Formats: sequence, C-alpha cells, structure tokens
Amino acid sequence: MKTLIIVSHPEIDESGSQQYLKEALPDTAEVTYHHLESTYPAGKIDIKQEQELLQNHDRIILQFPLYWYSSPPMLKHWLDEVLTENFAYGFGGNKLKGKELGLVLVIGMPEKEYQVGGREGFSLSALTTPYQAMAKKTQMHFLKPFLIFQFHYMEEIEKMRMLIAYQQYLMIEDFDTLRAKETWFLQQLDTINEETLPAGSPFVLEQVKELIEDNRMELDEIQMYLDQAGGSW
Amino acid sequence: MKTLIIVSHPEIDESGSQQYLKEALPDTAEVTYHHLESTYPAGKIDIKQEQELLQNHDRIILQFPLYWYSSPPMLKHWLDEVLTENFAYGFGGNKLKGKELGLVLVIGMPEKEYQVGGREGFSLSALTTPYQAMAKKTQMHFLKPFLIFQFHYMEEIEKMRMLIAYQQYLMIEDFDTLRAKETWFLQQLDTINEETLPAGSPFVLEQVKELIEDNRMELDEIQMYLDQAGGSW
Repeated sequence: MKTLIIVSHPEIDESGSQQYLKEALPDTAEVTYHHLESTYPAGKIDIKQEQELLQNHDRIILQFPLYWYSSPPMLKHWLDEVLTENFAYGFGGNKLKGKELGLVLVIGMPEKEYQVGGREGFSLSALTTPYQAMAKKTQMHFLKPFLIFQFHYMEEIEKMRMLIAYQQYLMIEDFDTLRAKETWFLQQLDTINEETLPAGSPFVLEQVKELIEDNRMELDEIQMYLDQAGGSW
Repeated sequence: MKTLIIVSHPEIDESGSQQYLKEALPDTAEVTYHHLESTYPAGKIDIKQEQELLQNHDRIILQFPLYWYSSPPMLKHWLDEVLTENFAYGFGGNKLKGKELGLVLVIGMPEKEYQVGGREGFSLSALTTPYQAMAKKTQMHFLKPFLIFQFHYMEEIEKMRMLIAYQQYLMIEDFDTLRAKETWFLQQLDTINEETLPAGSPFVLEQVKELIEDNRMELDEIQMYLDQAGGSW
C-alpha cells in the first residue's frame, strides 16, 4: 500500500507540530511527503503531475492545521485545480475510485470544545462534512480522521504515543484493528539493529515479541472457540 | 442597515451568475460590493482596511460559487488573514459581535441532490457547518443562506424572482417576514419615476400599492382579534 501525504501549511518551518510529524516520517518508499506551499511557491500547480501522483498512491492523506474550520487556502486551491471533472468525478472521472482519503488535522482548541455546549459548538464529524462529501463524489473511502488537539500542551510521552498512532495511520491497512497494530509492532521490532542496543536489551525485545505472538495465538483460539459455538449477537 | 457583500470568484468576468447578480445591485450607499480577487490580484490583503470595512457594516454577506463544498481559496485566505484574534474572537475580540452573517452560494447541481440518497449526499445545512461555527465564534447571527441552484438552467422569470429575493436578502431587516417584504415592495414602487411609464401604468401602480396596504390592514386586524381572544397554541 502506497500513501501520499499532501501537507498544506503557509509557514511550515515555524510550525512545531508539522516539524515533529515530518521528522517522524517512516523511512520507506511506501510513503510520499508532499508539501504544497514549498512545491508551488507561486501557486501555479502542475495539474498533470499532481494527478499522476494521486494515481500512483492508494491512501491519500490531507494534512493541515485547521484554520477557521477548514484547510489553508493553498490546499483549497489544489483541490479546485487538481480534482477536475472527467478525472475525479463525472464522465470517465473514476481515477480516485477505491482509494482511501484520510485527514490529519492539527487543532488549537481542546477536544471537549467540539460538541454542543462547547465553545466551538460543532463536532469535528460535522465540521469535516465537505471532505466527506468530496470522498463520496470521488468514490473514495473516507477514513476516520487523525486529530491532534493542542500539540503544544502535550507531554513528551503523549507526543510519542501520538507519533506511533500517526505512523500506523499512514502505513497500516485496517489501521484501527488490534491485529494490524500487532503485526506493525512486530515489523518495527524486527527492523531494530540489535548490535546498537545496550547489553540485555536484545533479550528483552525477544521477550516482547514472544509475548505479542502468544497473545495473538490466545485471541485466535478464543475467536475459534466462539465461532464453533456459533456465537451470534 | 448597511450591507457588505464580500464576493470571491477567481474568474468573475466569465461567470454569468455573478455578472447577473452584480448588474442587479441596488443603487444605494447602504450596500457595498467588494470583490476580493480584483481588489487584491497579488493576494496581499490590507488587513486593517478590511477590518474597518467590516466594522462599518451591519450585515456581512459572503458570496461565492460552491467549489468542492467550500469557498474559492481567495475567500479562505481573506478569512484567515482578516478575522484575527483580539479582533474577531479571543480577548477583546468582539468587533463583529451582533452583526449578521449571510451566505449567497451559487451551486452547479440541483437542490434535490443535497440530501441523503442524493448524488451529493449531504445537505447544505451540513456542508456549511464551518461557516456556522465561524459565526458562533465571532458572535455573529447566522442568516438562512441564499442558495442559487443551477443558474444556467433557470428561465428568465425564475431569474427575475430570484433577483428580487436577492435584493431583499441584501437590504431588508427580518428579510423573511411577509411584513418586511411588503414594506420593501412599497418602497420600490415609490422610487419609480411615473413620467417614464406608458399611459395608464401609473394608475395600475397606485392600485397595486393600495392593494398591498389594504391587505396589510386586514392582516393586522386579524392579528389584533387573535391577540384579544388570547389565542395560544
């Protein structure tokens, strides 16, 4: 699965959250990072090239700070220019059909304000309706958005947890199943060069891997038992 | 009441609907027409001047073609630049408080597609959530949007009816009450120079005015009767 991250931020070098996300990008050819404002500083978009980029990826992520409940103007410009009739919709316009559309939103206010009675008053599910409608029109699968609230108030450990979830959001098919996360963790552990670790650590890593695998076997056994018992809701 | 129409369209000279609306603008100092792309062709916005413009008006209208369920990028740029903290929201940021916010949206698809099961799948009430949230944050009153569906398929008589409703949307307080519309029609009739009319027409106009006034008196009498009868639901 190939993932394209379309990032829009007018002053990305000054954004702590965007820099943090960028530095944590997995080092793999499966993930393409594409910052619009630096690719097209004059705003003139190469439509054909952008459309090819979209066609070469399976999961399309729009990543931006939520300003006035929507994207920065450059991403809107990109949408208006690139998602043309006969490409993204309309007659013959099925080039995005079956791909996934994800949102990574960096949000300044706390999560609890985005509900009735909260200071923002509307949920993110309601505020992102235009993107859901876009996914419908282009026949893409709309993924659960990845929401980062108040990055600057997050503790270091929260940021690291967020980062792992972010990498999974970029790379894992069915990213919100436990099974997919297990597989991903095992793959990550396998990529560690054990020679660089302090004495004793390789042994701990082996133990962790075995634990995850044992856990999965037990879960599978329970599932099998439930299936045989014909358990239904 | 002073009304500011903030228009955003990247190629306004080629837009039949925008030209039609522009030509029908009432000739009064109460309505200011402000096209962003031609005011700021290089995109550099004079923030202070725009904020003053907002403060000098009571009803703020955002008028644009709905592209990908949102505004053209220039209007988004304007919102991000002009509606600053301490002006539009936050500490001391109550400069828009109590004003009205209206939307005039030109929409390419038919109205019936904007519902569950329709080809667009989402209502305009849902798609405009970001603007409703903006009105809430800036303490403005969100008006019922003025929606123009498939302008190019409208018959001449439909366009003229739409135009009258548009002028009322711009100029009348409580624009969707019958009483306000009556008053507006009477005012419009009064501005007609009778000397320019063909013979007989001035008499017809007088009759129309009397009819509207008689109608209103009768409605008021019925209302008074209902009030005295203590009619309650």
